[in-house]
Amino acid sequence: MTLRLSNAEYQRHREALFAKAAPHNLDAFVTFIPNNVVYFSSFGFISTERPIAFIFNEKTSVLLVPRLEEEHAQEVSLAEKIVAYPEYPGLRHPLEFLKDILVDLGVDKGRIGVDGDGYGRIFGYRGPSVSQLVPEATVVNVLDEIEYLQSINSPEELELIRESAKWGNLAHAYLQEYSKVGVSELEISLRASTDATLAQIRALGPDFRPRGDGARAAFRGQVGKASANPHALANNAKLKPGDILGTFGGSSIWGYGSELERTLIVGEPSAEQEKFFGLLVEVQDLALNAIRPGIPTSAVDDAVNAFFKEHDLEQYWRHHTGHAKSTLIHEAPFLDSGDQTPIEVGQVFTVEPGIYVPDLGGFRHSDTVVVTEDGIDFITYYPRDLESLIVPV
Amino acid sequence: MTLRLSNAEYQRHREALFAKAAPHNLDAFVTFIPNNVVYFSSFGFISTERPIAFIFNEKTSVLLVPRLEEEHAQEVSLAEKIVAYPEYPGLRHPLEFLKDILVDLGVDKGRIGVDGDGYGRIFGYRGPSVSQLVPEATVVNVLDEIEYLQSINSPEELELIRESAKWGNLAHAYLQEYSKVGVSELEISLRASTDATLAQIRALGPDFRPRGDGARAAFRGQVGKASANPHALANNAKLKPGDILGTFGGSSIWGYGSELERTLIVGEPSAEQEKFFGLLVEVQDLALNAIRPGIPTSAVDDAVNAFFKEHDLEQYWRHHTGHAKSTLIHEAPFLDSGDQTPIEVGQVFTVEPGIYVPDLGGFRHSDTVVVTEDGIDFITYYPRDLESLIVPV
Repeated sequence: MTLRLSNAEYQRHREALFAKAAPHNLDAFVTFIPNNVVYFSSFGFISTERPIAFIFNEKTSVLLVPRLEEEHAQEVSLAEKIVAYPEYPGLRHPLEFLKDILVDLGVDKGRIGVDGDGYGRIFGYRGPSVSQLVPEATVVNVLDEIEYLQSINSPEELELIRESAKWGNLAHAYLQEYSKVGVSELEISLRASTDATLAQIRALGPDFRPRGDGARAAFRGQVGKASANPHALANNAKLKPGDILGTFGGSSIWGYGSELERTLIVGEPSAEQEKFFGLLVEVQDLALNAIRPGIPTSAVDDAVNAFFKEHDLEQYWRHHTGHAKSTLIHEAPFLDSGDQTPIEVGQVFTVEPGIYVPDLGGFRHSDTVVVTEDGIDFITYYPRDLESLIVPV
Repeated sequence: MTLRLSNAEYQRHREALFAKAAPHNLDAFVTFIPNNVVYFSSFGFISTERPIAFIFNEKTSVLLVPRLEEEHAQEVSLAEKIVAYPEYPGLRHPLEFLKDILVDLGVDKGRIGVDGDGYGRIFGYRGPSVSQLVPEATVVNVLDEIEYLQSINSPEELELIRESAKWGNLAHAYLQEYSKVGVSELEISLRASTDATLAQIRALGPDFRPRGDGARAAFRGQVGKASANPHALANNAKLKPGDILGTFGGSSIWGYGSELERTLIVGEPSAEQEKFFGLLVEVQDLALNAIRPGIPTSAVDDAVNAFFKEHDLEQYWRHHTGHAKSTLIHEAPFLDSGDQTPIEVGQVFTVEPGIYVPDLGGFRHSDTVVVTEDGIDFITYYPRDLESLIVPV
């Protein structure tokens, strides 16, 4: 089973950027951010202190890689040409090779679109900005344009995101099934993730390339009272009756992913747990129903914030309603009162307002949805009701 | 079992920076890079588009976090004060709250040491530089100083790195034991990593905090001919007789780690495999013996490069000899012909020269060692000889 983006899609990504950035009248583009290099070249790789850059325009494309990636890049990338530098730090700085490429393309005095003025500060990397490297060029940041394109998913991209949701659902189902009083969160997570991934690789066959994690589900430390921390870290707690559990399930399919999160209750819920769980489902429904093309992303968060105010829940508010989701963990735009990006068909969002009650726990479901002409379609589909989410004791 | 850095060590980190950066005569420090925030404040967290910064000087310390991390930061960090901003992007930019802190500390017109002029470009983040935020301040980059401190490990830090090697060794032992013809690399990796982590959490008890992955071992796609790619990506290949396997084993202990890599051969090695395996052990021995305090890191790589030249192996060279290793995957300084950093006692390096033969496979062992007065001590200790690394068929 070939679950990957077609070469035509990568071509489409590049052409969409040429069109979107046309007003800047650029002679070439240079992308350094790993996710953007993949998006335009199809070259997926392990990102380190050794810079990798994809340089392209309407006529040609060049991938700059360290020597250790040369054969890998030749095999996997769609670049017309590969240039390999020996090493970082090396005897000559890797970005000097980028300068050579820009000179060869005749754009070193031209207008260059970049996703950042140089390579990032990863693992001890140091280096010049593009502006320093080719001081006669005009360097234009086009990260806004790139992120906009990435936020609108094509049918092929949506197919990969939907496929990821299946295996996230399986991992999550195992996570719930394996949850027992007295067993540690790490043990449950490991067994669920392993069993789901073993099923996934058998189901999808030898051609399956995750380009990321296999199927995974975890609690990430959100066990018992610690679930009141929206971003707790993995812990080693054993489940106890009365615990609230915050979960995650997901999977990478050729680098594309989805996000599924649920609030589970171990044993019969208390009246207080039941109350907040009900409010959580209510506010998530409100957010899901608010999404539609044409309104700003802030409108969804504003509706959620009004619900918090109306129900006197403001002390339990910790974060905005959600974020775009495709190839990264979080992506712009955000369902945030300060983000005025218009909602469009093809955008994929997590919808995950949360209620966090100190000394009790956190209440958050996260679903991944795609924006349609009429509103949304669900990509994740795990049950959201309390009865389905009780762990028997 | 409490495997964590003592609070005194975090205090020592800060004091060492005050001493090291004294020539810059700074009024305060601002760190944005997650690894640096942890290093000085003990606050470990999930890094996202929501900026987190640790601001400190000899008198006080302040941790800037998003609202969703406030309780978590209060519980875990050593900061004297926590300032929480509502959200990113939010109605007011998070770095405006940083500006308030700098004004409150009276350093907004002073000399500020930073690990980068602003927060990085993670997950759609946008924001001003510190220079833009407080234009009357003098902003001094002290990332070199911070990385230098991080490269010298204290006895407590070395204890955590040594502990990580035990569990990496276990995961790697399972990986080799579970390697069988006809089984896929992902299945072997998952089973080995799961079993090693389940053993680890039982052995170390409920107080164990990995602050990262449990014990892990994997092939990362380096199976058969694909092992000739030093940075292949995880694949779904089934082991075959004659395959060369490139492995990895490691574990995080309170964020500290080690690196263990071996070249395994499935079945009886061919004469060619035996030849390159012998050369690999020889060149790794040469590199291990070359390390001693007082020489530049480049000298080790130069010795390795001379070996490649002498044995006519230059066509099989793909990367430098190694890198520092402590809390990140790769760290500076590098055992690289272009890196002139003096080697010092307490530095921890991976030693991993590799020989990559197209259409045959890659030959690389990686060991983690600590620099001593006399040379090195091994931190990893898995067998390196061919006989021990044959997978029976």
